[in-house]
Amino acid sequence: MSGLKSLLAAGAALWVFAAGTAWADEGMWPVEAFPSAAVKAKYGVTVDKAFLDRIRGASARIPGCSAGVVSKDGLMQTNYHCVESCAGNLSTPENDYFVKGFLTSARSEEKQCPGMWAEILQSVDDVTARVNAAGAGKTGAALVQALSAETAAIEKEACANQTGFRCQVISFYDGGQYKTYKFRRYDDVRLVFAPEFKTGFFGGDPDNFNFPRFNLDISYIRLYEGGKPASTPVHYKWNPSAPKAGEPIFVPGNPGTTQRQLTMAQLNFLRSTSLLAEHTQRSELRGKFLRLEQESPDAARLVSDTLIGLENSFKVYFGRLKVLLDDAFVGKKAKEEADLRARVAANPQLAQEIGDPWAEVERAYAAYGDLYLPYYFLETNAGGGSTLFGYARSLVRAAAEREKPAAERLPGYDDAALQRLAGSMGAATKIEPELERVYLGHWLSKSREYLTADDPNTKLLLGRDAPEAKARALVAGTRLGDPAVRKALLEGGMAAVQASDDPLIQLALAVDPAARAVRRQVEQTVTGPTAAALSRVARARFAAYGDTLYPDATFSLRVTYGQVTGWSERGKEIPPFTTLGGLYGRATGQAPYDLPQSWFKAENRVNKDTVFNFSGNADIIGGASGSPTLNAKGEVIGAVFDGNIWSLGGAYGYDPTMNRSVHVAASGIQEALLKVYGREALVKELNGK
Amino acid sequence: MSGLKSLLAAGAALWVFAAGTAWADEGMWPVEAFPSAAVKAKYGVTVDKAFLDRIRGASARIPGCSAGVVSKDGLMQTNYHCVESCAGNLSTPENDYFVKGFLTSARSEEKQCPGMWAEILQSVDDVTARVNAAGAGKTGAALVQALSAETAAIEKEACANQTGFRCQVISFYDGGQYKTYKFRRYDDVRLVFAPEFKTGFFGGDPDNFNFPRFNLDISYIRLYEGGKPASTPVHYKWNPSAPKAGEPIFVPGNPGTTQRQLTMAQLNFLRSTSLLAEHTQRSELRGKFLRLEQESPDAARLVSDTLIGLENSFKVYFGRLKVLLDDAFVGKKAKEEADLRARVAANPQLAQEIGDPWAEVERAYAAYGDLYLPYYFLETNAGGGSTLFGYARSLVRAAAEREKPAAERLPGYDDAALQRLAGSMGAATKIEPELERVYLGHWLSKSREYLTADDPNTKLLLGRDAPEAKARALVAGTRLGDPAVRKALLEGGMAAVQASDDPLIQLALAVDPAARAVRRQVEQTVTGPTAAALSRVARARFAAYGDTLYPDATFSLRVTYGQVTGWSERGKEIPPFTTLGGLYGRATGQAPYDLPQSWFKAENRVNKDTVFNFSGNADIIGGASGSPTLNAKGEVIGAVFDGNIWSLGGAYGYDPTMNRSVHVAASGIQEALLKVYGREALVKELNGK
Repeated sequence: MSGLKSLLAAGAALWVFAAGTAWADEGMWPVEAFPSAAVKAKYGVTVDKAFLDRIRGASARIPGCSAGVVSKDGLMQTNYHCVESCAGNLSTPENDYFVKGFLTSARSEEKQCPGMWAEILQSVDDVTARVNAAGAGKTGAALVQALSAETAAIEKEACANQTGFRCQVISFYDGGQYKTYKFRRYDDVRLVFAPEFKTGFFGGDPDNFNFPRFNLDISYIRLYEGGKPASTPVHYKWNPSAPKAGEPIFVPGNPGTTQRQLTMAQLNFLRSTSLLAEHTQRSELRGKFLRLEQESPDAARLVSDTLIGLENSFKVYFGRLKVLLDDAFVGKKAKEEADLRARVAANPQLAQEIGDPWAEVERAYAAYGDLYLPYYFLETNAGGGSTLFGYARSLVRAAAEREKPAAERLPGYDDAALQRLAGSMGAATKIEPELERVYLGHWLSKSREYLTADDPNTKLLLGRDAPEAKARALVAGTRLGDPAVRKALLEGGMAAVQASDDPLIQLALAVDPAARAVRRQVEQTVTGPTAAALSRVARARFAAYGDTLYPDATFSLRVTYGQVTGWSERGKEIPPFTTLGGLYGRATGQAPYDLPQSWFKAENRVNKDTVFNFSGNADIIGGASGSPTLNAKGEVIGAVFDGNIWSLGGAYGYDPTMNRSVHVAASGIQEALLKVYGREALVKELNGK
Repeated sequence: MSGLKSLLAAGAALWVFAAGTAWADEGMWPVEAFPSAAVKAKYGVTVDKAFLDRIRGASARIPGCSAGVVSKDGLMQTNYHCVESCAGNLSTPENDYFVKGFLTSARSEEKQCPGMWAEILQSVDDVTARVNAAGAGKTGAALVQALSAETAAIEKEACANQTGFRCQVISFYDGGQYKTYKFRRYDDVRLVFAPEFKTGFFGGDPDNFNFPRFNLDISYIRLYEGGKPASTPVHYKWNPSAPKAGEPIFVPGNPGTTQRQLTMAQLNFLRSTSLLAEHTQRSELRGKFLRLEQESPDAARLVSDTLIGLENSFKVYFGRLKVLLDDAFVGKKAKEEADLRARVAANPQLAQEIGDPWAEVERAYAAYGDLYLPYYFLETNAGGGSTLFGYARSLVRAAAEREKPAAERLPGYDDAALQRLAGSMGAATKIEPELERVYLGHWLSKSREYLTADDPNTKLLLGRDAPEAKARALVAGTRLGDPAVRKALLEGGMAAVQASDDPLIQLALAVDPAARAVRRQVEQTVTGPTAAALSRVARARFAAYGDTLYPDATFSLRVTYGQVTGWSERGKEIPPFTTLGGLYGRATGQAPYDLPQSWFKAENRVNKDTVFNFSGNADIIGGASGSPTLNAKGEVIGAVFDGNIWSLGGAYGYDPTMNRSVHVAASGIQEALLKVYGREALVKELNGK
């Protein structure tokens, strides 16, 4: 489920990586670079300008997910898991939409999702030369700082004096290209339809990233403008016919992050150092929350959302680790790198220009080995997931950063970001002290475990305290759960922060110099040199392979193609389809296989042969959740909502034999909307009536 | 702490592996093969027959650990963590030896440790020809069965009609040698001295496998015969002088298991499949118990022992996984294998005889990939650590096995073993329902997660139940916690077992056919073929390297040598010594750094410059815990109690630059015994007075 919700926030990448030679049906293609000729040759399907223009105009990104416009009145289809938090926010004890589902009969019943937005691409502007000029002659931390400042300045200019737009500079091909993406931004997005949690997340964590699958992970939302449904003349056509095996499919959406151009030194670092350490800690934290869930029904409710997200991340990173321990996969990556290096070596002029960036990255990552643990515990994972510590750190840093000129600030503290920060500091977010204690205790105890008791950073974090006791004291003593307190500290600046006796503010202040120091060291010896080296690797790749390249995923619009297909595992064929009958068969009455009563009431009406979920070989990754699945005519025949367990290796490369996308079929959606939920009006709108 | 307690029970190995070329100071040498000439050349120390005879006569193995006889009256020195469960068994609410320590002033106060035994080697008999004859012409599961049956028969004969002895057939060099070890067995072992838990395990899990270290992980026990202290004319001399940097050391003990001769295919399987999956599950289970520990003071007491063992295993296997992800380490192993294969290839006659066992192992392990998960969940880890499920399985299997002739039974169900089983079924072992629920719930939910919900084995285990609910129901419904119930089922045989309505018996019965089937498949396609192939690898190694080989550890007597030395890590020198002053400096008052009052009362008397713990480069592994550390004269200058984090890779190979043993110094022990605990009589006995 949340499988494909973007993991951008999880800090998986230090920067955005890029570019690769394509295997069969591989590639997350920008619309302007879609390989129509290859598709024509392989599938006999014509993907013309009209097809691609419709994709550009009818595809949206929403927080962490993708969506497709499916009617002239702003109706969009996405996944249930992409609106789950909206359903939660709109729920009250009397109207629990997790239990009832969110069902509207008229547009007047549609409710705005708090904080939800949608962005549809309007224009793309190449700013490569300008960004490169800003970085020219700089290295290490200075280069990182210069690129960050110039990017912020371009974004500010591009959207100056315009409301209803969002401008974002995106780096493609390891800095080989920088483009400003300008989006039409909708801040009024309303919920139209969501099934019950037990239907939308049927199968729960055990079925997540698995197939066969039986999950109505679908929802409908609507764009509003000026309080009215937005007019959307460009939209996808609905086709509720069952998909057929081998049928070509197209998936336009916003895959979040891939790192397919990592060098072997980087892949090795991931598997032996960072992924392994973080996976280990995440497994333990998962155990803590799973135990907490067993303590009482209240505890189970308290921890439910946290656990869904955590178990999803667990599978994602475990999948990545496993693929990096797969000899065949790693061998293929090594062969690719060796091939590129051989091509460079065979061309003296190119070799002269490129140098040996692979060795430079290897040196940078050797240095990273000594910096990684303090960088992780003090900087990238400081607070271990605690919302309260996050507030404390932001308040401490905002106080320091806003006194500096724009070009010298840390990323995330430019004027626009500080304004957003003021908003979030003042918002009445619900804090759960028990979860905070678990996060902080885990962070402090793992810091001591990995850094060891003798490390000065451990002493900085713990003094003479025990981790769990310190976590309890921090949560008991802090007042940062109160928006008024946070607001006063933000407005009071450094003087107020330094005068505060709040224990979390004091901890964040005490840790900040060491955290900034290790951050700067990483920029200077790892991030900066690696960025410089990788841009030369990218140049080598263009020289060697020309235009067969697609950039790594950047949570911006891409189109991937393939077909409806199962796969073979341990000598067993996994067929690509499941039916609604299979859903009933799987319903044991025990969570997460406890189908709601609505389905049993409708059981006699439902056609059990209806195709419900299906698998395909579309090359997708987290962020693509909610993307429409299109047929050869560009009609919606479903929605992507997950990948199989092998798709997780897609972060580093596409394996055509095992990597599979998982979809809800339009046939199953329409049968459910009509027979189970009685949503005739919605089905009519989908069918353009 | 429990760092070096043997992990034999953890099922790390399917069989015992063997033999290797030695690096500097590497090797766990049998007494009869000790490399005295190399030691003389390197350290100028003469290790003569008298030296080795004393080692043979004064070294003991005890459950999971090693010990050294240190007086003429049967006094033995071992670690605190080797008698921790004894101290627990002897404790009452009024006399809690964890809190008070166990301090005797006279022999009459020494108390027998329930279940404790000690074994001292008497004779060794080569039975290679007989065992080989039993296996001749057999392959696969039939070979495994034949070797197991013949071994049991030899042991029975060798100890026939003799009480006070234990006979064990041990396989060395991958079946290159089989030897019957006959031990003098002591079943009356009494506790003489143990410090408080907080002293014996000072630094707890955070300091475990780390150094610098400040841990009085020491205890004294005594052998009794006929109700009186045993006479032990052969014993080690005590020398409480502080160790010196560079001083040669000798460590005689019983290292448990190493797997230094695994082929690259096996190492790859460990890191990418079994170690990774088991480490991941163990991390999660650790989180569950750590959370349980936070629930209440009662819960913390309940879980304490379990957590100590689990966190120790966690570090052990995490350490192994890390070393298998270290390119330098794995590269060295690959080079060794390539060298051996090249030597075989260069000798046509040898090549003809040896064939390609490496390819055979690789094929066997490729097949193991498909069998590993069901084998793990149904067979090797069935019950996930639940004592109650262990009873159920043993009862079900004993009922079936005892109806068969000896040669056809599963290992562990010969007549002697069935007799031991009757004893343990009748013993009043304490069962903690909460821990049982956690173990069973974890096992059932991880089975579903790894096998997936669609696997027939998952359906066999769960039916339509949810894992946690099923675990609760099993624990609530079973009566196997009652020794009388277990005894009746054991005596009632298959009829009683099949008639039982106990839910755990029913589960064990339902799972047994599938578990036996996958076990047999593994024997047939993995264990059997691998054993046959590895014995040819061992033969190749003998042919290539001659007598520079030592066998893999087998929890039998070995001697390792080296020197007192620190190491260098991330450019920082780690000095080899700590002092009693350092212990006081580290005591924060917060667990696990909360030193007991006894030490603060004695603070003025204690010489803080006394060397307390030290590190050396002795090549040790779990099981060596409690081994005496000897100087060049064969005198006791300390005791091994742990290794550094890098020593964990010692399972697969010895890294001379990083692998370090960790010792308590006799100087620190004597200072503590006299100044903190006032044990003058014990110190006099140690000093032969």
